Amino acid sequence: MATDKSDALVIGLAGLGTVGGGLVTLLQSNRDIIERRCGKRIVLKRVLVHNLQKKRKVTLSPDIDITDDLTKLTDDPEIDAIVEVIGGKTTAQTIIDRALDHGKHIVTANKALLAEKGLPLFAKAKEKNRILRYEASVAGAIPIVQALKDSLASNHILSLLGILNGTSNFVLSQMTARNLDFATALKEAQDKGYAEADPSLDIDGFDAAHKLILLIRLAFGVHYDYASLPIQGIRDLSAMDIRLANELGYHIKLIGSAKATDQSGKIEAGVFPALVSHSFLLARVEGAFNAIHIRANAAGSLFFHGRGAGDLPTASAVLADLLAVAREEYPNNTGFALDLPSATIFPASDSCSCYYMRLMVDDAPGVLRDIAGCMAAQGISMSHVMQRQQEESGKVPLVLMTHETTERAMQKAKQEIQEKLHPTEMVSFKVLA
Amino acid sequence: MATDKSDALVIGLAGLGTVGGGLVTLLQSNRDIIERRCGKRIVLKRVLVHNLQKKRKVTLSPDIDITDDLTKLTDDPEIDAIVEVIGGKTTAQTIIDRALDHGKHIVTANKALLAEKGLPLFAKAKEKNRILRYEASVAGAIPIVQALKDSLASNHILSLLGILNGTSNFVLSQMTARNLDFATALKEAQDKGYAEADPSLDIDGFDAAHKLILLIRLAFGVHYDYASLPIQGIRDLSAMDIRLANELGYHIKLIGSAKATDQSGKIEAGVFPALVSHSFLLARVEGAFNAIHIRANAAGSLFFHGRGAGDLPTASAVLADLLAVAREEYPNNTGFALDLPSATIFPASDSCSCYYMRLMVDDAPGVLRDIAGCMAAQGISMSHVMQRQQEESGKVPLVLMTHETTERAMQKAKQEIQEKLHPTEMVSFKVLA
Repeated sequence: MATDKSDALVIGLAGLGTVGGGLVTLLQSNRDIIERRCGKRIVLKRVLVHNLQKKRKVTLSPDIDITDDLTKLTDDPEIDAIVEVIGGKTTAQTIIDRALDHGKHIVTANKALLAEKGLPLFAKAKEKNRILRYEASVAGAIPIVQALKDSLASNHILSLLGILNGTSNFVLSQMTARNLDFATALKEAQDKGYAEADPSLDIDGFDAAHKLILLIRLAFGVHYDYASLPIQGIRDLSAMDIRLANELGYHIKLIGSAKATDQSGKIEAGVFPALVSHSFLLARVEGAFNAIHIRANAAGSLFFHGRGAGDLPTASAVLADLLAVAREEYPNNTGFALDLPSATIFPASDSCSCYYMRLMVDDAPGVLRDIAGCMAAQGISMSHVMQRQQEESGKVPLVLMTHETTERAMQKAKQEIQEKLHPTEMVSFKVLA
Repeated sequence: MATDKSDALVIGLAGLGTVGGGLVTLLQSNRDIIERRCGKRIVLKRVLVHNLQKKRKVTLSPDIDITDDLTKLTDDPEIDAIVEVIGGKTTAQTIIDRALDHGKHIVTANKALLAEKGLPLFAKAKEKNRILRYEASVAGAIPIVQALKDSLASNHILSLLGILNGTSNFVLSQMTARNLDFATALKEAQDKGYAEADPSLDIDGFDAAHKLILLIRLAFGVHYDYASLPIQGIRDLSAMDIRLANELGYHIKLIGSAKATDQSGKIEAGVFPALVSHSFLLARVEGAFNAIHIRANAAGSLFFHGRGAGDLPTASAVLADLLAVAREEYPNNTGFALDLPSATIFPASDSCSCYYMRLMVDDAPGVLRDIAGCMAAQGISMSHVMQRQQEESGKVPLVLMTHETTERAMQKAKQEIQEKLHPTEMVSFKVLA
């Protein structure tokens, strides 16, 4: 390359998919403002792709190399920083690890890698005195990593609730707005390119779970083992529950939740569908948007809302990190200690919540009495009971809203109801207060 | 002081009111997390107050000096950074200016000073290579300065809309929820301590305007002269308009608005009450909360919501800045150039918007025809007309919602209507799309 690089940050880009393409576009279209804000040019020297032959939407200018040899990125002494947006865990880990060995700074959007295998990478970055940033890994354009790491640094975080997966929120929004069943809404999302052919990562809650692990690290300063996190997706949600919840004043959302329990410092966390009151901003998050609600002991309640995915929104977060690298910010400002203590996990069965429960039962005298009896036997009291018209099946949907109770009590009550009344269907969801 | 300060940031605090008291409390109550996140202790050495005799809510520990001599703060070689939260422009300016001369870093919450007289202070900070931070100046605990300065640094900001004054939003929320008139709602807010005895700064839009000037600087990289900003407060809002707007699906909010006009780069900005659709998150901002909605060319739409005032929320923002100072972040990362170009101001009369207009008229044939004629003569078309029941005055409220038109056309139409029909009352507000 002929350009003078003394006033430039030279980068290598691993991955030319949605986010990589967005970054290439943005480096071009917003070059003026990037240079003005950064005080340096950001020069993309080389792009690593898996398949050199593949057709790309984005056109690389002729002074940018393209390669399928990762060492051309990681080992090049001219490159200052690597942007890793190939996704997946194996190659990405190799790239980041090797690039750190060669003294590169790292910017990554790889939530799965950082959640499951991130700690050794942060440790190596510290050892090599290099910067490892990952704003784009959580909630796309929403600056939540920065907010937790810097803006809220003086706060004890009490709780966080997030809509962290745009695909599942899009599917739920469609189910809610148009009374679709899950399969139809998912099919439409796939046809429109909002959902992958294999939608499991999004729909089953794993992607939200990866992001939640990263947020727990920043918010509570502990390592919560991904394999220990309770994860429930939206695959089994019925149009009927979404409709009934709506009538009661709630939207059903896929929530990533984490809180520090008061007494013990134990972390209560999980990903699950929950009823969210219409009066709560989180219920107003529509389509592919993400949002995060935080309660902190000094700042109070904070709510962030924005695009959680997409080429330019995610690339915007990548660039925020690159600009920080260009300014050579304090490399070890990871926002958490590197000898990260393991989270003490609050037992899920002790977790307290209000619940929505729906059963399909016979419309016969005594049914409600028997159900109420099973609930009362576990010390669960009800705030609301709603019985709807008979369905085609001949069964009647019966909806119960409970006061606060433990997950353990709910499970026991459900078990007893199952044994006594054999409802053809019985589902329950947490209700966020 | 006997403590070893090699691992400490030593600060002096100017002002022991709400925010100063909050900072003292937080330094004590969150000491553990501050030291863990910051890697240094933050040691408050001395507090400057106007009146040494005044009773304080907060108790200073015996190792903290208290003084009414500002040079004891600004000139003390042991002090690394000054927190200025006394408010007002004159003494605050002297303190910051003199402290910079003595090589101190500055953290301030003073929006009025920075908006009206800030540029020389930023220039001096650069000259002295000191950090001048002010996250607490805008929207309390919401990390909006950081977001614009760092997270969105690679974006062209297209527009921003903010609810930037908690007091006026509290008054409007009360008027909306309980159908109160302005005077009653304000009196209640004053009794509860949410509004000052002299409420003008909040109610008449000046406080929101100061914050908007700071946001324009960061978002658009220009200096918008405070004296040139159109400012309209909420003092003249009637309960009737709030009620009628609500029926039409809108809340009336005091909005700080700024956008870059597409063609010319001119800045269209102002503070004014406007109708906000219930479907828009900004309409859901209740009580003393603040919120900011940003549209950016890469990140897309972003919405931030949180506490805009109060002791601990504001002190949380002050501490975020102090931690950045302690980490010795790049001092000249002001987020805007110091040879700041002046904004080219978009003429307010050319500004385009939909409008809500209410007139009190006689319930007589031909009145609507005449009004519609005056509107049509200015090329204004209507989307909605609503006539309500007669009031006690014998007059009838007539509400018109217009399609998009210019402020100039609206003013001309109103003038013509005034001359022709002599309505006893005629008000209009912009409607945010």
